[in-house]
Amino acid sequence: MGVIHKFQGDPDRFDWEGIIPKGYESKDIRGATVRWLISENEKAPYFALRYFEVEPGGWTDLGRHAHDHGVIILRGKGKVLLGEKETEISFGDVVYVPPNELHQFKNTGDEPFGFICVIPDKDVLSKIKAEGSRR
Amino acid sequence: MGVIHKFQGDPDRFDWEGIIPKGYESKDIRGATVRWLISENEKAPYFALRYFEVEPGGWTDLGRHAHDHGVIILRGKGKVLLGEKETEISFGDVVYVPPNELHQFKNTGDEPFGFICVIPDKDVLSKIKAEGSRR
Repeated sequence: MGVIHKFQGDPDRFDWEGIIPKGYESKDIRGATVRWLISENEKAPYFALRYFEVEPGGWTDLGRHAHDHGVIILRGKGKVLLGEKETEISFGDVVYVPPNELHQFKNTGDEPFGFICVIPDKDVLSKIKAEGSRR
Repeated sequence: MGVIHKFQGDPDRFDWEGIIPKGYESKDIRGATVRWLISENEKAPYFALRYFEVEPGGWTDLGRHAHDHGVIILRGKGKVLLGEKETEISFGDVVYVPPNELHQFKNTGDEPFGFICVIPDKDVLSKIKAEGSRR
């Protein structure tokens, strides 16, 4: 059955009904939270849609991995590193991070930097990998 | 390699560098356009991310299909029909439309009603269907 998560935020605070923000700290991440808006919780089989927010001065981890990211910026301003190139990004900018590309998002402003980030479901990745290895 | 589509719009006109809006008219659709922001064009293998915009008085088609939708509203206001229930939606609201659920989006305001809509890639769907049929 369909699911709606009403936006409960305002321009200063982004939040959704029924969604609990999770810390996303590690030695490689500073001041970031993630809200899983569509995922296994909604029984979505193919992809997940998350909202990331990075505090002023913060960043997401510098890394690369087998899954890709589809990103659209919703608030604030920052930089994305893609491979060796950094680009300034703000509201509405769309970033596609392909599989295995080095990437990192940094807040370069003085308000929260927030973006939607889509990833394939882990079962999709494992099934597609299995499909590839049978060829 | 990573791809960035810079937002070129303003609050009255949403557009992206390198993205051509496409009409989305049929007998069942009124006043809708789609911008494919991340798709096969960006060599994205697992999902596509599109921006839909519906004019005042317009709607998307009433239908159901095997793929699901992950939606987040970016501008304007409207209603979504999910199954038999209609819900008012506006900025930031998240809608998950599961596979085979009847759905339709309508603009109920007097400005454009715009939203991001994620779908799985058609190859993902066909591979997963094939996987399922082997079980």
